Amino acid sequence: MSDFELMRTLHIPAQTKIVHLVLDGLGGLPRELDGKTELEAASTPNFDALAARSQLGLAVPIRPGVTPGSGPAHLSLFGYDPLTYDVGRGVLSALGIGFDLQPEDVAARGNFCTVDENGLVTDRRAGRIPTEFSQKLVPLLRQIELPGIQAFVEVVKEYRFAIVIRPMAGQTLHANIADTDPQQTGVPSLPARALDTASEPTARLVNDWIAAAREILKEHPPANSLNLRGFAKDPGFPKFPEVFGLKAAAIATYPMYKGVAKLVGMDILPVAGEAVEDEVEALHAHWDQYDYFFFHVKKTDSAGEDGDFVRKAQVIEHVDEAVLPAILDLDPDVLIVTGDHSTPSALKSHSWHPVPTLLWSRYCLPDGATGPGGAEFGERACGRGSLGVFPATDELPLALGHALRLNKYGA
Amino acid sequence: MSDFELMRTLHIPAQTKIVHLVLDGLGGLPRELDGKTELEAASTPNFDALAARSQLGLAVPIRPGVTPGSGPAHLSLFGYDPLTYDVGRGVLSALGIGFDLQPEDVAARGNFCTVDENGLVTDRRAGRIPTEFSQKLVPLLRQIELPGIQAFVEVVKEYRFAIVIRPMAGQTLHANIADTDPQQTGVPSLPARALDTASEPTARLVNDWIAAAREILKEHPPANSLNLRGFAKDPGFPKFPEVFGLKAAAIATYPMYKGVAKLVGMDILPVAGEAVEDEVEALHAHWDQYDYFFFHVKKTDSAGEDGDFVRKAQVIEHVDEAVLPAILDLDPDVLIVTGDHSTPSALKSHSWHPVPTLLWSRYCLPDGATGPGGAEFGERACGRGSLGVFPATDELPLALGHALRLNKYGA
Repeated sequence: MSDFELMRTLHIPAQTKIVHLVLDGLGGLPRELDGKTELEAASTPNFDALAARSQLGLAVPIRPGVTPGSGPAHLSLFGYDPLTYDVGRGVLSALGIGFDLQPEDVAARGNFCTVDENGLVTDRRAGRIPTEFSQKLVPLLRQIELPGIQAFVEVVKEYRFAIVIRPMAGQTLHANIADTDPQQTGVPSLPARALDTASEPTARLVNDWIAAAREILKEHPPANSLNLRGFAKDPGFPKFPEVFGLKAAAIATYPMYKGVAKLVGMDILPVAGEAVEDEVEALHAHWDQYDYFFFHVKKTDSAGEDGDFVRKAQVIEHVDEAVLPAILDLDPDVLIVTGDHSTPSALKSHSWHPVPTLLWSRYCLPDGATGPGGAEFGERACGRGSLGVFPATDELPLALGHALRLNKYGA
Repeated sequence: MSDFELMRTLHIPAQTKIVHLVLDGLGGLPRELDGKTELEAASTPNFDALAARSQLGLAVPIRPGVTPGSGPAHLSLFGYDPLTYDVGRGVLSALGIGFDLQPEDVAARGNFCTVDENGLVTDRRAGRIPTEFSQKLVPLLRQIELPGIQAFVEVVKEYRFAIVIRPMAGQTLHANIADTDPQQTGVPSLPARALDTASEPTARLVNDWIAAAREILKEHPPANSLNLRGFAKDPGFPKFPEVFGLKAAAIATYPMYKGVAKLVGMDILPVAGEAVEDEVEALHAHWDQYDYFFFHVKKTDSAGEDGDFVRKAQVIEHVDEAVLPAILDLDPDVLIVTGDHSTPSALKSHSWHPVPTLLWSRYCLPDGATGPGGAEFGERACGRGSLGVFPATDELPLALGHALRLNKYGA
């Protein structure tokens, strides 16, 4: 029996509520040898008090040593092993800019590039043109009209854009199409080659669109050509409410996280602004309507990516003060505090380090975890915790168990 | 290579002896915040001294968050992943009452129920009639005679009974048959419907038996009808001695545990009485004849199920005094102390919490685990142990390794 079949077989209705508080890129590293991490350095009296009553551990998002992208990292938190539940890069790209992807759409990533007079690629990233440059080009590409489809083109960042093609009603597109990016310079781009018979008509449409686009772009060096990569459709995953028996809501301010939550069938709650206080308000406003809340905090990751140790610690302190007590006020039955991955400011990027994680419920057996200065929520305390080093995909089953939402397995 | 193939390939003969001491439902929870669990509260000088010389950890019986039934939980301790090695509920029911199930038998669970004058189920549990009531009905059902089969009917508890049908020599019965329990009231029972062609003749026999049984029961409200569920045969698992290369004996007083041990091919040792002292005597009497002893203590679980914290702690103390030293006197090469699952008295039921586990051998690297009062065998100490949080199915391979019973893998 697969793990999802197990969950489907065992889950039972209950009145209990689960909050999954995700501080993006929570895990960190010390600035100097023997130093503290961002989370350990932050003054977090509320997290620390909760840690003393909780179980701690370190969550592995994908596999040990593997640094996750945001999409797979969140799928893992939602209980979907990202190596089994593979989302095409085109789809992640569209979700990342908040595109309202439909099941019949084919999405791809686009890169502007530079070609010479013979059509050989000389720069696969068009000299890393600024986003403003792309913002001028993309409207031109939107004017391309092709029979039988609608093509949406959206700016992503710098030389990157997203393209989504949508068939007319009743038609079907297929996405098993090879990248056109040759992955090296001095050679021409590849055609969008169908990798199965069903995808051939779609590949022809894509190639027509590419030809029209290149005709337009040749007047706009260094972005005088383009390549498309990662053709994909909505993978049609099993839906979270059906697998886990939870009416699930996502509270997030960035498109990517709303997109992944939508992909697994969560409702996306409206949030009035960008601040965590706005997210707390959304949580309070919809508390009675859902069993499970994914609550996403973005700015820990942004600060880590910027290499700003102090700002990352400050974001954590703000969550400790402005978010955690407001969640506890609602008296949830299970609260998990974690990150989707680590983003140590020392690395200025996502990393492979397992993620400090805290699980509280009235039925958990507290570790009584103590750091050097008493109970503490931090990487080292979590490394000694009774959850051990565990796959992040275990969080949902653990939450369901502690929420008394799973039947006994076997007699 | 599967885990079982690995064990088959590697195991070698040896003179070493392994004892697997299983305190049923060992894991617990504190009565109050900041309190100790049953195991932590119990005074266990012998377990604590052994813990100081052992490795500790927390065993996950099925999957994180999942509460096990006794059958799957024991299979896991015996090294059989219960999601792969699935035992039908009818078989577990027959094993649970000590029925001597044969490979060709089909077993099912039975529930007495109440139906109205139109045959619609009004109470799926016949008003939860007492066991004494069932003890009067079951002999009546034993009088039903059907051509080609023998039907055994046995009281289980309250409204529950077990039925086993056995074919005449040379005949084969098949168990892929749907439950007759409609799972709701106000509707009629379902027929025993064959789910494959091979099961059709068996389903017809079952339906004939049900019709005859209902004819008898209609005079005995509220148990004026019945339903059958969980049709199953002995799953024919690979046998423990062949997989692990161990001559294996089970010492248990309750039918369920003897039944599961028998299912995997262990010998069941005779035990003179219900007391752990009787079990110790059986261990001493057969020490020279076996390599592996499964030693089961039931009363920890019973006390937990009754919600009796103090009694559960007392049972643990009694095992510490009356069982552990007697085992150590025999000088085993490997001793594992664990439970099949947790049964916190605070929950009065099995739970999903991982199980405190101790592994001792002269080749283990002791954790030197220390609790607040020195070395300790307890949930929190195990949560800090070097075995980590691990699948219970690892216990047998770990035992074999420490017993010097596995060849090197590869050169």
